Amino acid sequence: MARLVLDYTAMMAPRLGGRGIRPEDLDAATAGFAAVQHDVDARRAAGRLAFFDLPREREVVDRIRAFADGLGQAFDTIVVLGIGGSALGTTALRHALCTSGWNELHEDDRDYFPRLYVLDNIDPATITPLLDRLDLNRTLFNVVSKSGTTAETMAQFLVLRDRMRASLGDGWRGHFLFTTDPEKGVLRALADAEGVPTLPIPPGVGGRFSVLSAVGLLPAALVGIDIDGLLAGAAEMDERCRTPELTRNPAALFAVLQHLADTKADARIHVMMPYSDRLYACADWFRQLWAESLGKRTALDGREVFVGPTPVAAIGATDQHSQVQLYIEGPFDKTITFLAVRDPGPDLAIPAAYPDVDALAYLAGHGLGELLEAERVATAAALADAGRMNMTIELPAIDEHAIGQLLMMLQIATVYAGALYGVDPLDQPGVEHGKRLTYGLMGRPGHARPEIRPSDPARICDGT
Amino acid sequence: MARLVLDYTAMMAPRLGGRGIRPEDLDAATAGFAAVQHDVDARRAAGRLAFFDLPREREVVDRIRAFADGLGQAFDTIVVLGIGGSALGTTALRHALCTSGWNELHEDDRDYFPRLYVLDNIDPATITPLLDRLDLNRTLFNVVSKSGTTAETMAQFLVLRDRMRASLGDGWRGHFLFTTDPEKGVLRALADAEGVPTLPIPPGVGGRFSVLSAVGLLPAALVGIDIDGLLAGAAEMDERCRTPELTRNPAALFAVLQHLADTKADARIHVMMPYSDRLYACADWFRQLWAESLGKRTALDGREVFVGPTPVAAIGATDQHSQVQLYIEGPFDKTITFLAVRDPGPDLAIPAAYPDVDALAYLAGHGLGELLEAERVATAAALADAGRMNMTIELPAIDEHAIGQLLMMLQIATVYAGALYGVDPLDQPGVEHGKRLTYGLMGRPGHARPEIRPSDPARICDGT
Repeated sequence: MARLVLDYTAMMAPRLGGRGIRPEDLDAATAGFAAVQHDVDARRAAGRLAFFDLPREREVVDRIRAFADGLGQAFDTIVVLGIGGSALGTTALRHALCTSGWNELHEDDRDYFPRLYVLDNIDPATITPLLDRLDLNRTLFNVVSKSGTTAETMAQFLVLRDRMRASLGDGWRGHFLFTTDPEKGVLRALADAEGVPTLPIPPGVGGRFSVLSAVGLLPAALVGIDIDGLLAGAAEMDERCRTPELTRNPAALFAVLQHLADTKADARIHVMMPYSDRLYACADWFRQLWAESLGKRTALDGREVFVGPTPVAAIGATDQHSQVQLYIEGPFDKTITFLAVRDPGPDLAIPAAYPDVDALAYLAGHGLGELLEAERVATAAALADAGRMNMTIELPAIDEHAIGQLLMMLQIATVYAGALYGVDPLDQPGVEHGKRLTYGLMGRPGHARPEIRPSDPARICDGT
Repeated sequence: MARLVLDYTAMMAPRLGGRGIRPEDLDAATAGFAAVQHDVDARRAAGRLAFFDLPREREVVDRIRAFADGLGQAFDTIVVLGIGGSALGTTALRHALCTSGWNELHEDDRDYFPRLYVLDNIDPATITPLLDRLDLNRTLFNVVSKSGTTAETMAQFLVLRDRMRASLGDGWRGHFLFTTDPEKGVLRALADAEGVPTLPIPPGVGGRFSVLSAVGLLPAALVGIDIDGLLAGAAEMDERCRTPELTRNPAALFAVLQHLADTKADARIHVMMPYSDRLYACADWFRQLWAESLGKRTALDGREVFVGPTPVAAIGATDQHSQVQLYIEGPFDKTITFLAVRDPGPDLAIPAAYPDVDALAYLAGHGLGELLEAERVATAAALADAGRMNMTIELPAIDEHAIGQLLMMLQIATVYAGALYGVDPLDQPGVEHGKRLTYGLMGRPGHARPEIRPSDPARICDGT
């Protein structure tokens, strides 16, 4: 099958007039990479990087298929209740692999696959109108939370359970599916008590590494995405990244280049900029992966380090008219990773008209997709000409096999980057304090009402 | 009317345990602000900041009303063809002020106002399915480009014009409205030649300052947004920001605090994080405003400066599960501006269930909106407790008057920030090189085929 290609010419100083990564720094990283790979291999062998095994988990795929081909057929709408890692991967898969505007298509044009909504926030201004317009009697709610303690998801669940009970009585249970820990946790216990069907999130798989578990695969299968193709692409990428030879390992190269850009060239803002509407949600998914995995106060050796690059999602050509001015002329504090597509599918021809109008005539005979690709090439060249680090991940196409490769590559890169930064890419200790404050404000037993320090009246501008 | 409030307690060192902005630095900026205001007043008086006048442009409002109440009634779908500043403001208004899921609502639930799509990219994978499912005979295309030379928008126009001509012959003209320069440019000439109706973009108003011109107001009026309310809110904010007294001027405070954060505290990443789904598109609109206005290589005095903060759009509560780990534990290189809403509208109650389950019981009796607000308060406090600069812009509600205030405040803040950084906030010279390369690649006469430097084969990882 066709392989993803990483072109990093324009990350390197020779292309950038001296700015960017020096070849000798990359050479040093190349020499040191075998130790990183060895470390990752050891953690993997010890079962501490469980996401690596997901492409080969056949049993859950069979269960997903059975559900999708059986009970799943009864629904014309799927609503995922989840937030963060329980939502972003599913959204990425939907936008990449379903027809654009999926939920607005007539059912014929969806081949009778259901609509798919991902409710990843708790704003009543979104949820109330959505519930008002869905036919709840034909809707499946997939509640996704490993522990079952996620406040937002549990609050959504309580709202929906009540709504469905009011209309269906005990039949509400047939409209829910929980994706959660196979043995522990609140949602598991509820599923057992209520008889709600479940799918497992393997114990060692955290939210942001869960897209290739039932978390992402169940909704994907329900809307007709070829999950075997996804997993095959991911498995192939995994194989490709087993090499300790840096320059042949795309995940490692991506991680090493971003780490060198940060530590040797002060570029701590890592933009991911697809030239495809379908891939923007993948950039948003990457935003969580990179930020939450690498943004850490404490290193593995206990030192206080306050590290972590800031990922930014952008999109071409649109953001050429919003962000590229800054990327080209602002501080030298960024890298740009373009996502390109070798075969993006059918183009849309630009017809000829107004042959005497210079600003229109040259467009005729080309296609919109061709223009988009020309703009990508031009923008990458303009950035490099201005001394700005950029690289390009080229997907062979936008299909399951390619998306599987991309998602797996970025997950593996995140583990390598954790090793390079010396932090644990699997934890997120920084959000605990805010959670405790929320529990206190909401009156959760065992959590005292927190003292939120009041604002300084002299630091409020209110028009008085 | 109720006023927007800026609370910047947590930008200041006393709240942050010594990190953040020192009071004496803010005092110095306060003393120096009268000169900034004087400079802005002078440019305004000289007619060089035309966007300030938009809230008082009555004539165009009357023309918009006449169109919306007349010809505009014939359409059940509006498609804006535009990119960058021709698209972002309209998207911001639609998401803030129309019911969530607007385009999926039944026409009853839209009070028979039309659907609104903003086509801000040229990806055939988006455009082809959209055109396939629209009833083009009931669709109005609003082409928005000041010069009429924007490649993406003109290419879209050629595609749509051809499509409409094929089905309607000469009647295609009745389905187009051009928003463009009142006198010059390609689109103006085409409108005159073809007899297509137009609305003006005032000469001194650039794309990213055009939301309160016909660019944003026409689509807004067509979907039932109260444009007089928008303009009234904007005019009120303008009045409020006429004072040279920094601490009473919210736009100036916002600009000064961000500038001090950048220059005195190394915080060059400026996150805008609404706790409302409806305001996320406003944060995305702000991203263009801030990045393109301030990201500059050359200062007004000719020095090479390479300045410009990087704006980032985030959303609560969702990004607590994606970005907040980094914001709390990563480098001290950010400010977070929360957008809060004092009266967000009807809440959605969380029903009681499972009183014995600790992780669920405490939620009962609260509302989803209440939980969202508690999380905002908790996250802001957790950031401040970790020494992280943050401030809160509180809107009285999400209505036209409040959104008018917010958009005007951020536009005025951008002009102040330009003065503080010493750059021209109205130009974007950095994107010209990329445009020329694109023209060359597309074979536009007068533009030689550019030499794009080839990639280094040694810097390509392709699996061979």
